[in-house]
Amino acid sequence: MNTVNMNKMSWVAYRDLVAATNPPVFLPVGALEQHGPHLPLGTDALLSAAVAASAAERINGIVAPALSYGYKSQPKCGGGQHFCGTTSVDAQTLIGLVRDTVREFARHGVKKLIIVNGHYENQWFITEGIDLALRDLQPNTKMRVMRLEYWDFLTEATLQSVFPDGFPGYALEHAAVIETSLMLHYHPELVRLDLIPDDGPADFPPYDVYPLNPTWVPPSGVLSSARGSDAVKGEIMATELATHIAAAVTAEFERARP
Amino acid sequence: MNTVNMNKMSWVAYRDLVAATNPPVFLPVGALEQHGPHLPLGTDALLSAAVAASAAERINGIVAPALSYGYKSQPKCGGGQHFCGTTSVDAQTLIGLVRDTVREFARHGVKKLIIVNGHYENQWFITEGIDLALRDLQPNTKMRVMRLEYWDFLTEATLQSVFPDGFPGYALEHAAVIETSLMLHYHPELVRLDLIPDDGPADFPPYDVYPLNPTWVPPSGVLSSARGSDAVKGEIMATELATHIAAAVTAEFERARP
Amino acid sequence: MNTVNMNKMSWVAYRDLVAATNPPVFLPVGALEQHGPHLPLGTDALLSAAVAASAAERINGIVAPALSYGYKSQPKCGGGQHFCGTTSVDAQTLIGLVRDTVREFARHGVKKLIIVNGHYENQWFITEGIDLALRDLQPNTKMRVMRLEYWDFLTEATLQSVFPDGFPGYALEHAAVIETSLMLHYHPELVRLDLIPDDGPADFPPYDVYPLNPTWVPPSGVLSSARGSDAVKGEIMATELATHIAAAVTAEFERARP
Amino acid sequence: MNTVNMNKMSWVAYRDLVAATNPPVFLPVGALEQHGPHLPLGTDALLSAAVAASAAERINGIVAPALSYGYKSQPKCGGGQHFCGTTSVDAQTLIGLVRDTVREFARHGVKKLIIVNGHYENQWFITEGIDLALRDLQPNTKMRVMRLEYWDFLTEATLQSVFPDGFPGYALEHAAVIETSLMLHYHPELVRLDLIPDDGPADFPPYDVYPLNPTWVPPSGVLSSARGSDAVKGEIMATELATHIAAAVTAEFERARP
Amino acid sequence: MNTVNMNKMSWVAYRDLVAATNPPVFLPVGALEQHGPHLPLGTDALLSAAVAASAAERINGIVAPALSYGYKSQPKCGGGQHFCGTTSVDAQTLIGLVRDTVREFARHGVKKLIIVNGHYENQWFITEGIDLALRDLQPNTKMRVMRLEYWDFLTEATLQSVFPDGFPGYALEHAAVIETSLMLHYHPELVRLDLIPDDGPADFPPYDVYPLNPTWVPPSGVLSSARGSDAVKGEIMATELATHIAAAVTAEFERARP
Amino acid sequence: MNTVNMNKMSWVAYRDLVAATNPPVFLPVGALEQHGPHLPLGTDALLSAAVAASAAERINGIVAPALSYGYKSQPKCGGGQHFCGTTSVDAQTLIGLVRDTVREFARHGVKKLIIVNGHYENQWFITEGIDLALRDLQPNTKMRVMRLEYWDFLTEATLQSVFPDGFPGYALEHAAVIETSLMLHYHPELVRLDLIPDDGPADFPPYDVYPLNPTWVPPSGVLSSARGSDAVKGEIMATELATHIAAAVTAEFERARP
Repeated sequence: MNTVNMNKMSWVAYRDLVAATNPPVFLPVGALEQHGPHLPLGTDALLSAAVAASAAERINGIVAPALSYGYKSQPKCGGGQHFCGTTSVDAQTLIGLVRDTVREFARHGVKKLIIVNGHYENQWFITEGIDLALRDLQPNTKMRVMRLEYWDFLTEATLQSVFPDGFPGYALEHAAVIETSLMLHYHPELVRLDLIPDDGPADFPPYDVYPLNPTWVPPSGVLSSARGSDAVKGEIMATELATHIAAAVTAEFERARP
Repeated sequence: MNTVNMNKMSWVAYRDLVAATNPPVFLPVGALEQHGPHLPLGTDALLSAAVAASAAERINGIVAPALSYGYKSQPKCGGGQHFCGTTSVDAQTLIGLVRDTVREFARHGVKKLIIVNGHYENQWFITEGIDLALRDLQPNTKMRVMRLEYWDFLTEATLQSVFPDGFPGYALEHAAVIETSLMLHYHPELVRLDLIPDDGPADFPPYDVYPLNPTWVPPSGVLSSARGSDAVKGEIMATELATHIAAAVTAEFERARP
Repeated sequence: MNTVNMNKMSWVAYRDLVAATNPPVFLPVGALEQHGPHLPLGTDALLSAAVAASAAERINGIVAPALSYGYKSQPKCGGGQHFCGTTSVDAQTLIGLVRDTVREFARHGVKKLIIVNGHYENQWFITEGIDLALRDLQPNTKMRVMRLEYWDFLTEATLQSVFPDGFPGYALEHAAVIETSLMLHYHPELVRLDLIPDDGPADFPPYDVYPLNPTWVPPSGVLSSARGSDAVKGEIMATELATHIAAAVTAEFERARP
Repeated sequence: MNTVNMNKMSWVAYRDLVAATNPPVFLPVGALEQHGPHLPLGTDALLSAAVAASAAERINGIVAPALSYGYKSQPKCGGGQHFCGTTSVDAQTLIGLVRDTVREFARHGVKKLIIVNGHYENQWFITEGIDLALRDLQPNTKMRVMRLEYWDFLTEATLQSVFPDGFPGYALEHAAVIETSLMLHYHPELVRLDLIPDDGPADFPPYDVYPLNPTWVPPSGVLSSARGSDAVKGEIMATELATHIAAAVTAEFERARP
Repeated sequence: MNTVNMNKMSWVAYRDLVAATNPPVFLPVGALEQHGPHLPLGTDALLSAAVAASAAERINGIVAPALSYGYKSQPKCGGGQHFCGTTSVDAQTLIGLVRDTVREFARHGVKKLIIVNGHYENQWFITEGIDLALRDLQPNTKMRVMRLEYWDFLTEATLQSVFPDGFPGYALEHAAVIETSLMLHYHPELVRLDLIPDDGPADFPPYDVYPLNPTWVPPSGVLSSARGSDAVKGEIMATELATHIAAAVTAEFERARP
Repeated sequence: MNTVNMNKMSWVAYRDLVAATNPPVFLPVGALEQHGPHLPLGTDALLSAAVAASAAERINGIVAPALSYGYKSQPKCGGGQHFCGTTSVDAQTLIGLVRDTVREFARHGVKKLIIVNGHYENQWFITEGIDLALRDLQPNTKMRVMRLEYWDFLTEATLQSVFPDGFPGYALEHAAVIETSLMLHYHPELVRLDLIPDDGPADFPPYDVYPLNPTWVPPSGVLSSARGSDAVKGEIMATELATHIAAAVTAEFERARP
């Protein structure tokens, strides 16, 4: 039977694993957000869950169900809230989701929780959720939480090989080469390479305006081109992410042990 | 490509579907909650999503990602919050999740939203979330929302055939014959028939106490026996649920049209 | 002087009672909600307070002032929020009221708190309020809370005698035989038997819609007929409720003592 | 039948009254708070309700159920939260109660709402609740709200006759001559004149400290002496309050009509 | 270097001061609110900060940055929310600001916190913020908080000399003689004596109405005349406030030491 | 008299300016946060206010009082919440502050609001506050809001001249060359060059941990060295920021006019 996905385990199996092996538990956080005409709306949750599962498999971890709805999409990193299909939650809701689930994992006896974020806009609200949960649990909790944006584990070398013409930066990496290649690796049946738009890289001023100006963002919702994506790049990056995240989890929580 | 699961569609495909066919959109709401030693923790989300997909397929509907974490488990219908693995959220969080997502679907132009609840404890917080979203949207929204607990679509005749010795009531139907049979139909690989416990039906007093009294609930977490579950019963019920929910959606939203 | 109603005691008398006898404290929770043309808007608060007082008298309990405003009326159990006169509060408000008052009773040294709910829609928000209060008080509180819907203490035998043609179920029991008979027992001057409407039992589909469909509910607001109500039935039920609730309180909190 | 108390009217009677006569609706707000050894814990709710009813009777008004639990008692005006029996709610809860009920009365078609406050500490949270409700209702509501502390309608002349030795000010008027005399008028059976303590007037510095210093407040909870209270003074004040409030309501809402 | 204003100290200097001298820390709370044509919008924050600094200088205290935005202006004490320029926050926001900052000062090791309020409308929300912070910190915190409205430290004798014709009361003292004179002392360059309006004292009924009636308040926003203000009166009052507040802080926190 | 700082204007002057010239209003948002031993705790509020004033002066803008307390300091960009003196607020509080003040400026008739953020951690909570305010104001508001982190207006050329050895990135630019040089320009009396620590640049892993690991951050709180800071660099940067922000405000809001 499944030994990675928490939602497919019985509570008895989960309890026994937690008690016996003090496993790292991964909580992926995604979004339901436009990712251009060639990637599905669920890309961020699918990728954060896939990366979490790949890392978890390497170190006998457990993956909790992803939070499928993320914070509101912003023009400079996700295209913005004017896109049909983008389905986002308020700050308070995302903060609450993280706070409540962190507190529950602590009740289970989990000591190593890793929140794997796959949607740029989520970061600060996840941070607040963790902070409030630890305040609730303080001061005697043994729970420690690691929060990461999975793409930060790609090395310079890999970025150079994936982007031979130069890496445009993570903010513009929305529905672009990294996400498309990873999707080609993990979920090729959900990628429509034939629909990749020709939109050049979006060029943003050094500020934001509200209500957003839809002309800032290409109508396709793609912030920089996904051309050049392929499954081999995806595999290289997926392997690197899984390996490096697994290693960081092991090292970081080892260090804490004594 | 997939035409049911929203998270696997591109935003362009979703937008075009919404604009062209005014499709019903189904939002499953589940839980991550102990379901005895024989069913997985994710049963409620898996079943509400499966039932929603089965109904949606019949009427060209769309299924949004399930809300995977539900309201706190109660002894009389879910075993209680003392079980390891049960991972629940506060009322405010679930209310917020429903409120925010309903508001977003309205922004997309969705006019028919069906919230398919698979976790008994969620009902009233979903109701509040819908009410607050409609208050936010008022008074000119065209969005109408149907909320249902999927099991309420089983007919008396089916209940009698599934429970030849008498139906113990939905509250005790936790990890019991209905859920186990449906899981055997939809996800047989996640069911461990060999681990079904012998616990007789739980017998509760006509009140609740807080903090809960763990002795009220069998240690297995099963409130009435799952013995007698089989995939044939599951298929009969699954078909009935899909057919009847699809029919109700069509009829109810037709009625509203003029 | 009064020895049951907390709001009529001086703080000194209350303090001495709590310190000397560790009395059960009852908190009734009602609503201000349409109850047909024959019963007053305050029925739920009046009945929950009367039942609480009757039970309290038997076991030297104290009755706190009722929460007079309840959660939003739903079509299937209270007629719905479209009725003039129905005056309801948001989930957050009711949760807060319960949370704050539970915490205060704990500060007083009360160890046995019984929340007597008289409005179906309140149940889950009371539950959340208690849960949050206990989280605030944890882990060293001696406060234990019992929550009950008073009608659940009626026996099968009584229901059969009160409903010779069969009991329609508690959800439809809104402004119907049970409430009308209890009001004829406790507050006969507030009942207008001559105005009981002829509306047959409401027949609801197995789902809810929002915004509500007012045609689902009889214009009178009565979900099943109150014909057949009388003060004798009221007295029989009132006695049974008081006796059984008093016995349950005694037994449950006794059990906790060692 | 009763024509003043809303909770004793049927919804039909209330609806017809509101539609036919555009009556002023009074919402009393009290507290459950220590009032010395001689007055009951419910004094503030009892008095605000009694004053509201007396005013309402004069101008065909309606009195909604009192909010029975008020904001946290402060040393300088209510003795403080260290007293057993004082049962208070957080700011957010009281704000929510007022906001929700104001919004509901507006839905009923009520255009004249008078909130009669009987607990000094409530004032600012009632104000916020009204402000938020009007924001919710804006900008087309016809609802107008009057908020008053009932004692502010006593005239200088009356205060001089009631306090021949000089009026100590309303803040110290807690369980003292005004409240005791009014209770002797409205609810004499709940007053224990024999238990009036000898505590002289409390003398506070020009600041507050938190956590409170219990030595600032006499152990009886009385901030200035209730000696000299009698039912005649109570009747004089009760009549004045009812008359003046009724007149102010009529004049203020008349003025608004054109 | 500066030794009073916290925002101008380095964290090292602040830390060392707190550890070495257990200094009183003053948190001024003001508002951005109309103060007639002759005083600036920031008067309340400027004055509470100036008074706090004057007191702090006398007893080696520290002054934290003022909260510059206060609770919504009310007609009877600030003119009302219909004035352009008045910029106010909701109750929840001000409560949160106070709660969070009190909790932070406790984390720093501050044991003597004095909240110096300069805006009448803030008082009760500051009180709630302190109460919630102490609940968060309980029960082992050494933090004690003093809250004061600075004008309450003026003596009767001073009021008589400043108001030879009689003191109109603090509620009407908005942009009037006290505030204008203090501003002439502390910030004479911000006062336009030539623009002092001739508005007589506002005369309010013994209730409030919502939405507010703008005709209750003089169009200038001044509730009683500022004529007679001068810098000498300002200096006298400023000295008295600083001296008396400093003395009260010293005495009150001394008393707590043993 | 002052024509830039809103808190130093009378409401009449402000109202007239807003009505006559439709001025841009700048709202600086800072923090009270450790900035090493050489910079004061208030650096972020001081700098965002100074930059806002410099820009406002160029285009007849108005500067509202800064929000002086910011979101919780994070190790990678501010050192973390373990530093004494750092005084931060919860997400909900900062969101509320921004939401409420934006709504108020809209009520004043302000159409051009520029939020000048000077504390990295604030960005996403400011964004949520703006979004919620615009939701409150929708859909007919003429208010448009620009949000910016002031450092993003520095050009590449300037960064190269300020950092001849290469720019370490804004996250590490905490109490380092940019902030120190700007402070030397705007508030030289608050800078202690003699206390600049020798801490090399902090080196962080590609994830965060909670509770934070204090060893990640130099004990001084400086994330990269401030050596090389001088007032000339400060002036160059200050001029560039003021000029470029003023130009962007003019251009962006011009564009919106037709």
